[in-house]
Amino acid sequence: MSSVSVKAGAIVDALGGELFGDADRVITRLAPLESAEPSELSYLVNPRLAHLLAHTRAGCVVVAPAQAEEAKLRGDCIVAPDPHLYFARLTQLWKKVHGRTPVSGVHPSAVVEEGAWIHPSASVGALCFVGRGARIGADTVLKERVTFAEDCVIGERCLVQSGAVIGGDGFGFAHHEGAWIKIEQLGAVRIGDDVEIGANTCIDRGALDDTVIEDGVKLDNLIQIGHNTHIGKHTAMAGCVGVAGSARIGAHCTVGGAGMILGHLTIADNVHISSASIVTRSVLKPGHYTGFFPLDENSAWEKNAATLKNIHSLRERLKRLEALFPKDR
Amino acid sequence: MSSVSVKAGAIVDALGGELFGDADRVITRLAPLESAEPSELSYLVNPRLAHLLAHTRAGCVVVAPAQAEEAKLRGDCIVAPDPHLYFARLTQLWKKVHGRTPVSGVHPSAVVEEGAWIHPSASVGALCFVGRGARIGADTVLKERVTFAEDCVIGERCLVQSGAVIGGDGFGFAHHEGAWIKIEQLGAVRIGDDVEIGANTCIDRGALDDTVIEDGVKLDNLIQIGHNTHIGKHTAMAGCVGVAGSARIGAHCTVGGAGMILGHLTIADNVHISSASIVTRSVLKPGHYTGFFPLDENSAWEKNAATLKNIHSLRERLKRLEALFPKDR
Amino acid sequence: MSSVSVKAGAIVDALGGELFGDADRVITRLAPLESAEPSELSYLVNPRLAHLLAHTRAGCVVVAPAQAEEAKLRGDCIVAPDPHLYFARLTQLWKKVHGRTPVSGVHPSAVVEEGAWIHPSASVGALCFVGRGARIGADTVLKERVTFAEDCVIGERCLVQSGAVIGGDGFGFAHHEGAWIKIEQLGAVRIGDDVEIGANTCIDRGALDDTVIEDGVKLDNLIQIGHNTHIGKHTAMAGCVGVAGSARIGAHCTVGGAGMILGHLTIADNVHISSASIVTRSVLKPGHYTGFFPLDENSAWEKNAATLKNIHSLRERLKRLEALFPKDR
Repeated sequence: MSSVSVKAGAIVDALGGELFGDADRVITRLAPLESAEPSELSYLVNPRLAHLLAHTRAGCVVVAPAQAEEAKLRGDCIVAPDPHLYFARLTQLWKKVHGRTPVSGVHPSAVVEEGAWIHPSASVGALCFVGRGARIGADTVLKERVTFAEDCVIGERCLVQSGAVIGGDGFGFAHHEGAWIKIEQLGAVRIGDDVEIGANTCIDRGALDDTVIEDGVKLDNLIQIGHNTHIGKHTAMAGCVGVAGSARIGAHCTVGGAGMILGHLTIADNVHISSASIVTRSVLKPGHYTGFFPLDENSAWEKNAATLKNIHSLRERLKRLEALFPKDR
Repeated sequence: MSSVSVKAGAIVDALGGELFGDADRVITRLAPLESAEPSELSYLVNPRLAHLLAHTRAGCVVVAPAQAEEAKLRGDCIVAPDPHLYFARLTQLWKKVHGRTPVSGVHPSAVVEEGAWIHPSASVGALCFVGRGARIGADTVLKERVTFAEDCVIGERCLVQSGAVIGGDGFGFAHHEGAWIKIEQLGAVRIGDDVEIGANTCIDRGALDDTVIEDGVKLDNLIQIGHNTHIGKHTAMAGCVGVAGSARIGAHCTVGGAGMILGHLTIADNVHISSASIVTRSVLKPGHYTGFFPLDENSAWEKNAATLKNIHSLRERLKRLEALFPKDR
Repeated sequence: MSSVSVKAGAIVDALGGELFGDADRVITRLAPLESAEPSELSYLVNPRLAHLLAHTRAGCVVVAPAQAEEAKLRGDCIVAPDPHLYFARLTQLWKKVHGRTPVSGVHPSAVVEEGAWIHPSASVGALCFVGRGARIGADTVLKERVTFAEDCVIGERCLVQSGAVIGGDGFGFAHHEGAWIKIEQLGAVRIGDDVEIGANTCIDRGALDDTVIEDGVKLDNLIQIGHNTHIGKHTAMAGCVGVAGSARIGAHCTVGGAGMILGHLTIADNVHISSASIVTRSVLKPGHYTGFFPLDENSAWEKNAATLKNIHSLRERLKRLEALFPKDR
């Protein structure tokens, strides 16, 4: 990023926190502790990594109160109650100061159909398509090459990454004499405020009712959201996740990368699904759920996989032996 | 969708079925049984959900002959031998009546190379790319931002959703002194009639011969079809499926979401692969095949996964005990 | 592809190898052994398929020295030390001779922001977006509809397939009072020379430092590369692979289709991950690693999956029996 610099004092003026050190220190870049240079600012979130403080060359470090003394020993620091949050806000400030926030308005190369409504403060990037009847709220940003199809609605302060397709047809067919007859998808997609949607992610329009993404949901790249899915507030999904149609997912859930949720299931609030795990039944109890085959050297896996295919008979054989030696005899 | 209304009588005039009730009843929307309003039309497919009939507020309901009496007790109904099929046709009628069918012709923002041939009744959406030598059949629709690369061919009445890439290079390299040497992909993609291809799905061009998608195949979003794959008629694949190169998949198969089919395999007709299952060998017998790790609470999974890595030795230990107590002694 | 023809003699003049047969033989197409016609040229890589030589109708066949005598018995052949490599070079020659290599320059429909630098020999396809500060090296090709975001850099002779998104935001948030606060992604993506990136594949920009893809890496379609990942030279990944953030992957690795690599892991050089396998810990020893549930008929899978969920207790039960019959009593 460009060469505008920011003084340490200006940072605490904008974001709060207590600065110990030189308010006139010029910060040229934000950087990880390990690679930060003397003109750069870094941060420490995990107390278990506090030992890195002694070695970092960073000119200034954001730390929690518990690490304040240790940080001061090495040089300048900003003390803030939640350094991770502070750093998030700092990256936002940084982007603004360096003029990298998206420009309001519709890029001339974008195609916007008649009857779409776009808030004047929203940004529609190059080569986007916005269909008729679509509505895009204040301060929402569609990056380049986004499809936002007819009648879909998105709230305020959302961010849609490049290549995402919002409002493609859901996958619905009636079976008739061996062929598939298209069920036209007459619903749309309704997205709340503060939602982020990743690159090349797809959210299908509903069959009759709408697909709904509530406020604060964060979807990573290459995610597939089937028609009529409902995703509750502040749920986050990592890359390559798939959600089949009509799933109802609660609030404050997380799904790890390549997790799969089958259709017509209900997932309670505060459910956490591990990466590469497949959800085949409703999960009504908050908690952490997992299901994938552990990685092993291929030769070991081959032996175990072969045995696995007979594990049921193994159990039967074990039962027979147990019957010979009952526990309480 | 818009506010044009349709009378119940006009529906049976267009689609058949027997109407019991008011032919002048105005239908303003199609809706699920649970949420339908008195001005809306719904349908019942699954006889096990017949109990919903008593509670729906729908103005009219499409039912099978077996549910006709029950439906009449509650109000207006249309009786049709296959309500799912009837409803599919009704969604198509609905879209047409409301003027939401795609317009023929090439959108001015699309890029069509010289030497491409597009049937006058076909529709090429905004910001599409169609390469030289490509051929697009009658009534086929490319939605917005589709890539349809050079020399690829698609038949009639197909629908390609936004962001799909038809005819990207297959993944082919020769290994030479630790590096990968590109094998140029000289084949193309040949797609039959009545095929649907989902948003951001990729179908690679063949290395020498073509990749072939036969009539009536339905592919959901974010699917990867490797080069020289052959997919038989009316096979359907759900989102996030991957098919590696040179697989030969039969007709009337289904693959659940995130299923994977490795390369150079043969899959017979009428094979059904469950979601998240990986096919590593040819499947020559019709049937239903599955292979994924069942979901569990994380702590239970951890214990079972650890044991799984030693399941082979478990079998050996069981064998030793069994040897001490032969069955027929 | 078009109808330009090439003589067998011209091929060996350009690529080397020893021709046994008619130098004036006109080659109209490259084709697999099984389907090649008398005017077509084919090749044999796998010695175990040498029996196909007797049956192919190909006009000329590229073979290794070990198959030379067998090939000569059936007709014309070109003998080359590495027929696979020879054929790769031949496909490249074929594409060039037929005028199918991309044209240098920026397509008029592409959007290139001010401050981007594109080498005059590079090719930026239709409807691409190139952000400010981006740099594209000599002879690199962006096919149609590629996003190459601001400040990202790509070297020479690279090929980016349609729909790829280079430099979307990494997935980074701070958690605050139940909501996710955006961490702006201030790094970029740095790509070396001779890299290929598949259709609709996404490579996220780094949070603070850059995401790095080294020389010769080959990525297939629909792959997700998280922010700050580092991929070593000549590593290849098949379709639908996911790599979470900050993974450090060595050189000369391969990852099979739909393999997943979690974040903050280290993978050594020469590690090979099977398809559909998930890497949840660092892999520091070269080798071949696998972890997926083997496919089975659904009914057998159901029984085994049910048992699997109690495999830990199975082990405990086995232990009890073993305690009754110690090995060395």
